[in-house]
Amino acid sequence: MSNPLLQKLKNGDVCLNGWLTIPDAFVAEVMAQTGWDSLTIDLQHGLHDYRSAVAALQALHGRPVTPLARVPWNEPGIIGKVLDAGAWGIVCPMVNTAADAKALADACLYAPQGARSNGPIRAGFYGTASPYQTIANANILVLPQIETPEAVENLEAILDTPGISGAYVGPSDLGLCMGLPPILDREEPQILEIYERIIGATRERGQIAGIQNNSPAYAARMGKMGFQILTIATDVNLMGFAAHQAVKAGRELTSEAARA
Amino acid sequence: MSNPLLQKLKNGDVCLNGWLTIPDAFVAEVMAQTGWDSLTIDLQHGLHDYRSAVAALQALHGRPVTPLARVPWNEPGIIGKVLDAGAWGIVCPMVNTAADAKALADACLYAPQGARSNGPIRAGFYGTASPYQTIANANILVLPQIETPEAVENLEAILDTPGISGAYVGPSDLGLCMGLPPILDREEPQILEIYERIIGATRERGQIAGIQNNSPAYAARMGKMGFQILTIATDVNLMGFAAHQAVKAGRELTSEAARA
Amino acid sequence: MSNPLLQKLKNGDVCLNGWLTIPDAFVAEVMAQTGWDSLTIDLQHGLHDYRSAVAALQALHGRPVTPLARVPWNEPGIIGKVLDAGAWGIVCPMVNTAADAKALADACLYAPQGARSNGPIRAGFYGTASPYQTIANANILVLPQIETPEAVENLEAILDTPGISGAYVGPSDLGLCMGLPPILDREEPQILEIYERIIGATRERGQIAGIQNNSPAYAARMGKMGFQILTIATDVNLMGFAAHQAVKAGRELTSEAARA
Amino acid sequence: MSNPLLQKLKNGDVCLNGWLTIPDAFVAEVMAQTGWDSLTIDLQHGLHDYRSAVAALQALHGRPVTPLARVPWNEPGIIGKVLDAGAWGIVCPMVNTAADAKALADACLYAPQGARSNGPIRAGFYGTASPYQTIANANILVLPQIETPEAVENLEAILDTPGISGAYVGPSDLGLCMGLPPILDREEPQILEIYERIIGATRERGQIAGIQNNSPAYAARMGKMGFQILTIATDVNLMGFAAHQAVKAGRELTSEAARA
Amino acid sequence: MSNPLLQKLKNGDVCLNGWLTIPDAFVAEVMAQTGWDSLTIDLQHGLHDYRSAVAALQALHGRPVTPLARVPWNEPGIIGKVLDAGAWGIVCPMVNTAADAKALADACLYAPQGARSNGPIRAGFYGTASPYQTIANANILVLPQIETPEAVENLEAILDTPGISGAYVGPSDLGLCMGLPPILDREEPQILEIYERIIGATRERGQIAGIQNNSPAYAARMGKMGFQILTIATDVNLMGFAAHQAVKAGRELTSEAARA
Amino acid sequence: MSNPLLQKLKNGDVCLNGWLTIPDAFVAEVMAQTGWDSLTIDLQHGLHDYRSAVAALQALHGRPVTPLARVPWNEPGIIGKVLDAGAWGIVCPMVNTAADAKALADACLYAPQGARSNGPIRAGFYGTASPYQTIANANILVLPQIETPEAVENLEAILDTPGISGAYVGPSDLGLCMGLPPILDREEPQILEIYERIIGATRERGQIAGIQNNSPAYAARMGKMGFQILTIATDVNLMGFAAHQAVKAGRELTSEAARA
Repeated sequence: MSNPLLQKLKNGDVCLNGWLTIPDAFVAEVMAQTGWDSLTIDLQHGLHDYRSAVAALQALHGRPVTPLARVPWNEPGIIGKVLDAGAWGIVCPMVNTAADAKALADACLYAPQGARSNGPIRAGFYGTASPYQTIANANILVLPQIETPEAVENLEAILDTPGISGAYVGPSDLGLCMGLPPILDREEPQILEIYERIIGATRERGQIAGIQNNSPAYAARMGKMGFQILTIATDVNLMGFAAHQAVKAGRELTSEAARA
Repeated sequence: MSNPLLQKLKNGDVCLNGWLTIPDAFVAEVMAQTGWDSLTIDLQHGLHDYRSAVAALQALHGRPVTPLARVPWNEPGIIGKVLDAGAWGIVCPMVNTAADAKALADACLYAPQGARSNGPIRAGFYGTASPYQTIANANILVLPQIETPEAVENLEAILDTPGISGAYVGPSDLGLCMGLPPILDREEPQILEIYERIIGATRERGQIAGIQNNSPAYAARMGKMGFQILTIATDVNLMGFAAHQAVKAGRELTSEAARA
Repeated sequence: MSNPLLQKLKNGDVCLNGWLTIPDAFVAEVMAQTGWDSLTIDLQHGLHDYRSAVAALQALHGRPVTPLARVPWNEPGIIGKVLDAGAWGIVCPMVNTAADAKALADACLYAPQGARSNGPIRAGFYGTASPYQTIANANILVLPQIETPEAVENLEAILDTPGISGAYVGPSDLGLCMGLPPILDREEPQILEIYERIIGATRERGQIAGIQNNSPAYAARMGKMGFQILTIATDVNLMGFAAHQAVKAGRELTSEAARA
Repeated sequence: MSNPLLQKLKNGDVCLNGWLTIPDAFVAEVMAQTGWDSLTIDLQHGLHDYRSAVAALQALHGRPVTPLARVPWNEPGIIGKVLDAGAWGIVCPMVNTAADAKALADACLYAPQGARSNGPIRAGFYGTASPYQTIANANILVLPQIETPEAVENLEAILDTPGISGAYVGPSDLGLCMGLPPILDREEPQILEIYERIIGATRERGQIAGIQNNSPAYAARMGKMGFQILTIATDVNLMGFAAHQAVKAGRELTSEAARA
Repeated sequence: MSNPLLQKLKNGDVCLNGWLTIPDAFVAEVMAQTGWDSLTIDLQHGLHDYRSAVAALQALHGRPVTPLARVPWNEPGIIGKVLDAGAWGIVCPMVNTAADAKALADACLYAPQGARSNGPIRAGFYGTASPYQTIANANILVLPQIETPEAVENLEAILDTPGISGAYVGPSDLGLCMGLPPILDREEPQILEIYERIIGATRERGQIAGIQNNSPAYAARMGKMGFQILTIATDVNLMGFAAHQAVKAGRELTSEAARA
Repeated sequence: MSNPLLQKLKNGDVCLNGWLTIPDAFVAEVMAQTGWDSLTIDLQHGLHDYRSAVAALQALHGRPVTPLARVPWNEPGIIGKVLDAGAWGIVCPMVNTAADAKALADACLYAPQGARSNGPIRAGFYGTASPYQTIANANILVLPQIETPEAVENLEAILDTPGISGAYVGPSDLGLCMGLPPILDREEPQILEIYERIIGATRERGQIAGIQNNSPAYAARMGKMGFQILTIATDVNLMGFAAHQAVKAGRELTSEAARA
């Protein structure tokens, strides 16, 4: 029992992460068969809540992907629930200070490293010591989102907080907070400079850096820069964009056929 | 109050139909914003049941697509329920005889044309005569699936059954029943000959022909042949294929980056 | 363990029945506290399916109303399921012949009276003989809907079918099938004559007659005529009409206030 | 893309608001057809949670009402989620201090006005700058509930917090906290005096005042006093009260009929 | 890709089958970790419907048990849906004649052996020929329930119907139809004689016999008699009985403690 | 209207509490028929969330058990929601300080004892003063979990916080935080000493002590020690353990039969 994604990251692999926003377990199991290293169930901006996340985690069991979850906020109730349900890592929005980072680590890790409450219901029978509890702290990825200038300012303090595994960049919020449009795959020099700083600071500490992207090409650039967790796409964007393309092609080809 | 898809079909338009198999209303509303003329909620091979179909129909209200439903079987209970919930047409599997076609028409149409029970709960308040009941029979598309050799043999009798709007071809079942692999976008001459016969028979009667396809290009050929309802893709295939492509591109580009 | 509604009907009481169309258990429990003798969960034209019906039946347990269910169609699978889940009676649409009536009775009653399969999961532990099985046949109300001219023609044969408890009139379908608008609370003499005939035939056989109404006043007339199960209103019509009234009053009073 | 309710409020209109407590999308769409200016999905005392709120928001799309949400508590996770899902305003319970008000505004508004995280999944494709993000801050109604003596004491400080749109009065909590019974439509002079003060303070600042009422008549008085958002009724109270009335009338009329 | 249970049965193994009646995927995955050869999702007398069955099938993926389903009735719509969702076998109630058996086989098997419609959505992408379709007919268990005297009378004709895999005995219905109490683990000689006859007839044809039991001890006797699929317990009975025992022990021990 | 469990506790009874982790209302109603004094719906480590808790509370109505809820965290939003939905007591994890205890009491009790917001939707019609509000504060059990050394250190301050009903021990977390394995039914002297101290402190204040156990025998010892609320088992452990036993017995007995 271990976190396969963590092993790959420790090996220095660049990992591809998919993003689940559609609250349906069938979507999760289809995505799980398309080659991702990990899938992140998004309970913040995705339409998932705890119960749909559980269904997705159940569907992901036995599939060759590592399940992670992004929580709606840095709140110990929901963090504990998704970990108990089987997520191997937490992406947490808006971690801006060392105090935020400590609260996050406390919610993710058992004592003495943290203050997570015992009861891993899908990993063992609750009320029983199981292998899970002995390996959990070493296997749970604790990924604060760095997505505000305040977080960038406090970057080192956040990363130095015991229990933190690295940093996950939220480019659209970072830009928005800096007065720029809320997009991914950014080219502004001041943003790229921040990325470099994040890479440097995590690498220095033997930690992981991850980032949300909107295309394989940009993601590959980020991988080359040093990010190891590359989110490339969300379920709904993949479907929506492919549907747009299919309809467009269908319209054009049927018009041509009609004219021919 | 009318069926916009039917208007287009009567105008002679070739219409693009999307296929909903993921039992989630968010998928329905995203698909509804990508340009389809109609969306068919699949209660047979899709993962939808009645309750998820209702949620999809609720999400499709106010969107520029006409909702249809494929029912699990030629059974009046479920046909009535999805019509009452707001579907503007029924695609019905395995209609092989005139008797099957009559049962289908009876389930879809109010007396005297049929035997549908009154109670269109999402179209008016149940127990009250509303505009819906006066226009329903003229607006509901009643589409038997022609997908067995028996159905092809009985084609004219099926189409001549009062209340039937035309024929919708299920290529994979048709092939399977003829000893061929169960695929779409078929090239076997004996199959294409059947398609031509279906086009001819429906056109002769002023009816509609539709067909399930797996690519815009093949669909366009079918449109040129005379099919007016062209299903091009399903939600899950669009997502799954796009995810495969994204991961493949991500792997290649990150490998290149690593090698560079 | 018995069916309280049946006791009242046997005493000659006129009973008030409410109609549940909103697929939510909270609606069921609120309706259950407003004085009805029975509540009918509508799986045909209501938005209920089996799972929401189970939730409603769970919510109705321990409340002073008898739960009935209207099934989507005369199909033994769903009839068995809602009985196993705890309904004390079945209202079945479109029972037009003695054969339909026999199929209905078979689905509702255990051998030797019928062919219901054993497994009353919410009334006892499945696989165990419990008091339920010994009293079920005597307590389940089996109510075919008389709602077509064909059913009226076959009325006596339907009522003479062993196991049938009486007749439940569907006025809107009856009218629709006779070329009249699909409404409740009807005044056409030919319809009222049918009602009298149904009352006579059921009374003669010591059976129960019921009818769907749209107002307490009309229902009371029907009660006087001899109907014992009087459906007066549906959850959604009560809510929708009251909302219309509240908004209308709100608009008028705020306009007056503005003018004052 | 804009908030139609806000336009009416800016025009000085008195608006009628309905309250959704039943966690079902069909209830939402029926209520949406009865004339309200806005409907508030209640995630605090109503039975809604995030997933049922999403279903209601999906059902309200394309209907002539503006959707608002009352959140369970002043917590940024759920506030962000219901805004991302399409609510045009937040009613937040128990805002008692300027600090509470600032937390609320931060959760509702994007930088630089607030700290809402970007990802409006039902308003645009996540990860893309869309028109929504450019108009959101100007269109989201941020309504703290004034429902304790402490809040009344801090009224001006709350209203002066940047981003706050006005005040929404919770009469039953306000009374309860003052040692009075927890009812709506109150007549105590000390309460009415508070209402006047709230009207004055919001008017002075060009802000909006709203209040929960239990009858059109009392609501109209409040409208005359200066409240612009008048909640008149909840879905469940409308249904429950109407059911009581129907059963009562049914009992009386059938008894009369029996005596006649 | 194959049916592991079928392999064991062909090897002559006696297999232990658990029964799922609680419509929750967590129950399915816990049951899947307790050693059963197969688990049967009960859509007839269990509280499962199609959607909860899908969730259970998703949870069972990757677990060391073979999933089967009991359908509510011999109806092709639901049989096709649960097979498409991944069940490896169908237990079908009330198969009383060769015609019933043929309808069942038709619904379970693809042409030319049957008439199942193509679209195995969870086993391959719909519309594509996948390995599943080429192995399905050889791997799907088609198990009619022999549970009436009529079925016993027609036993050989049922078993001789092409596509039928054997017989599954429903002891409580069989007894009920013979005027005996509806229990499992029966001792009546006339019943045991029927069991012997079923064993003989299936063995003769190289088919499988299965039976529903209520205890490991009785099940073992049935295994010795020749039944190969032994259902021993249901999720809810296991839980309910264990809870009774725990509470009883708790009461006794706390009373003793109090007296001590 | 009152809390039956509280009456028993005041009488000095030792009460048996069951634990609900499976998010299904059928499980709740089956457990409710097996003799427990109370059932606690676990929203923290159980798979329940608010909506499944509501379904369980609806199913428990009219059953002879008192419903309690364990919340995911000391957060007023969810505490208010489960109380409004009908729980008669709150078990709250990780109450470590007097400030935590005050926050908990504020969330559970109406003014002037606390700050709970009015709106008990399942106990009365919201917006109306009902008997519930007048008896709630005297009947709601407010049970902080004592499960860290910090909580033990602050025990008296926690118990002295107005509104607190006593202490509920979480043995696995308490052990984990003390460097011991996370199990129930503990024998370490330093732990048993803490239990004695908790019994003493609660008894002194006329308060209630409760504890989570894993067996009737250990629970009885705890009852003798002075704990009055004895949780003996969870739904899922009862089912899982019984299934293990049944399969094991089945394997052994069928092997013996095969050998015989």
